[in-house]
Amino acid sequence: MIYSVIMAGGIGSRFWPRSRKARPKQFLNVFGETTLLQNTLARMQGLVPPENCFVVTHERYAEQTRAQLPALPAGNVLGEPISRNTAPCIAYAAVKLLAQDPDATMIVLPADHLIRDVAQFHDVLRVAIERAQEPGALVTIGIKPTHPETGYGYIQFDPADEDPDLDIQAYWVRTFAEKPNTATARRFLNSGDFLWNSGMFIWRADTILDQMHKHLPDAYEAFAPLEPAIGTDAEAAALRKAYHDSPRISIDYGVMERADKVYVVPASFGWSDVGDWRAVYDLSDKDDHGNALKNHAIVHDSSQCLVHGNGRLVVLVGMQDTVVVDTDDALLVCHRDNTQQVKNVVEYLHAHQLDEYV
Amino acid sequence: MIYSVIMAGGIGSRFWPRSRKARPKQFLNVFGETTLLQNTLARMQGLVPPENCFVVTHERYAEQTRAQLPALPAGNVLGEPISRNTAPCIAYAAVKLLAQDPDATMIVLPADHLIRDVAQFHDVLRVAIERAQEPGALVTIGIKPTHPETGYGYIQFDPADEDPDLDIQAYWVRTFAEKPNTATARRFLNSGDFLWNSGMFIWRADTILDQMHKHLPDAYEAFAPLEPAIGTDAEAAALRKAYHDSPRISIDYGVMERADKVYVVPASFGWSDVGDWRAVYDLSDKDDHGNALKNHAIVHDSSQCLVHGNGRLVVLVGMQDTVVVDTDDALLVCHRDNTQQVKNVVEYLHAHQLDEYV
Repeated sequence: MIYSVIMAGGIGSRFWPRSRKARPKQFLNVFGETTLLQNTLARMQGLVPPENCFVVTHERYAEQTRAQLPALPAGNVLGEPISRNTAPCIAYAAVKLLAQDPDATMIVLPADHLIRDVAQFHDVLRVAIERAQEPGALVTIGIKPTHPETGYGYIQFDPADEDPDLDIQAYWVRTFAEKPNTATARRFLNSGDFLWNSGMFIWRADTILDQMHKHLPDAYEAFAPLEPAIGTDAEAAALRKAYHDSPRISIDYGVMERADKVYVVPASFGWSDVGDWRAVYDLSDKDDHGNALKNHAIVHDSSQCLVHGNGRLVVLVGMQDTVVVDTDDALLVCHRDNTQQVKNVVEYLHAHQLDEYV
Repeated sequence: MIYSVIMAGGIGSRFWPRSRKARPKQFLNVFGETTLLQNTLARMQGLVPPENCFVVTHERYAEQTRAQLPALPAGNVLGEPISRNTAPCIAYAAVKLLAQDPDATMIVLPADHLIRDVAQFHDVLRVAIERAQEPGALVTIGIKPTHPETGYGYIQFDPADEDPDLDIQAYWVRTFAEKPNTATARRFLNSGDFLWNSGMFIWRADTILDQMHKHLPDAYEAFAPLEPAIGTDAEAAALRKAYHDSPRISIDYGVMERADKVYVVPASFGWSDVGDWRAVYDLSDKDDHGNALKNHAIVHDSSQCLVHGNGRLVVLVGMQDTVVVDTDDALLVCHRDNTQQVKNVVEYLHAHQLDEYV
């Protein structure tokens, strides 16, 4: 059976002041009326029924997750006792799924990304799911780059086995590359065989546990004792111990970069990881002056601005390239080129005992 | 006896969103803890005792005025039934003062200006008061220009009778000039005999009424019947009729530009009419990066900004030359070069049935 596992444990600070420790990015409606998490689940419609969709998040967000996803059975929200990056999160989900379905195939999805073309997304996933049935295969999705982006990791694939008759196909992965500098990003873009690392994975639950056993034994050993406890009174304690014993490591670094049989399916379905307010601006509908205005905003002689209001009237006069985000207790006014620095603000607030705003 | 008459009827909209119809500029504390009106009264200390200070304002602001000026006898706040510009306001005050003191000399002051050097201000006023005792004399204060300002009217004086031994003296006024364009303003500045029109006047109450009789008979006729009603049960009705019958006209245009014996005392006591948020920025204390921050504000990579907070945390990232004014129900983000346009915002709000914000 096919399952989706949505990873919703992020505590991203680049969407301050809308994102807070108590309300990270995935729970925000930065586009339209629904949140990024809700959109992520909705995109499964037609491919995976809700009862086969799972969300893994820190247990402090479990209630909020259930509230945002009423279609999901409550038991499908898996609470992590501590945040340990993606490898433990995926191990937990794999153990949980294997306990109910030894034949489980997992679609692992970040909760806070944007995808425009859902039909193509499904087509890509179907190709990935098929390839994932191959013994030992780990499959990821790579986004065909549209510009020399320095904010993403890259995946180089091997075009040798290309079948020119297929629109969508899986390629053998040559290497994973860290976020490049601009010159390298341009080279990647021009090469034709580099893709953006989307952080989406498709594999069988048994395969990923096998591969963890091989490449990340510490994490595997931590989670192996959880399997017999699933569904028993000992599950919660076993889970807590598994997370405590597990290293803090990403699945990319811990498994993907080390495994032998890794495939990537190139895609161009209008993807963004919505990394900061600038990305929200880029992805928002705009008026004739390039302004993206949400809620109660009036602009005079202003252009290329993003306003995320909060009920109060926001008036811009003579402003260009400015991001304004209003909340009940804090207001951000940021140049559109400086939105990456917003996380520094959050660090500053932490360092200056202003945690009420974090 | 010497009296001060503070004109506090303005409904200036250039300080939106802090200024509202219910709370015009003079009632705001744009500098420090006290309001412009409170500062105006405080500047009389040592020159005119509170019982001789009067404030004329629209009757809708009378209560607010009394609340801000507890040292003032309640009866010294004169409420105008309708706003009719400065000539009726001054006629009302003159009639009122003459009824209690036939020898009254009035210092007429706008309620919403800034003066840095109060000692020099008093010295200038003393010279003006002395000159105002001359029969038929109307005296005004002119500010020595420091730059080619196009936002002020100008006064040209006649330096012929200059006494080189006097630091402060009154000169005969040649002409009043409207707000000039930049080229003309430069010429005015270089001429040495043009001053900024401060809107401050010093005259005897009987003299200004005589001059109104001569140059503005409609206004004089409207207010003459008020004189016998002062202090009687008929005063309120007579006042209402006087304002109703009076033309809507400024004392500058109605009397000063037409009268024969007009003097100006040049001064340089650090004056500003605090015309818009840019002026507030210019006049505020600033940090090393030229930021003037009031209330709870944090700035990163930002310079030459003005933030008037409202209790909420305001964070600026990567901003230059920006004015941010926060209030409970509305927020302004304005380029420092566009603060004059703020009044257009208020017009827009009027025109679009958004009067709740006006």
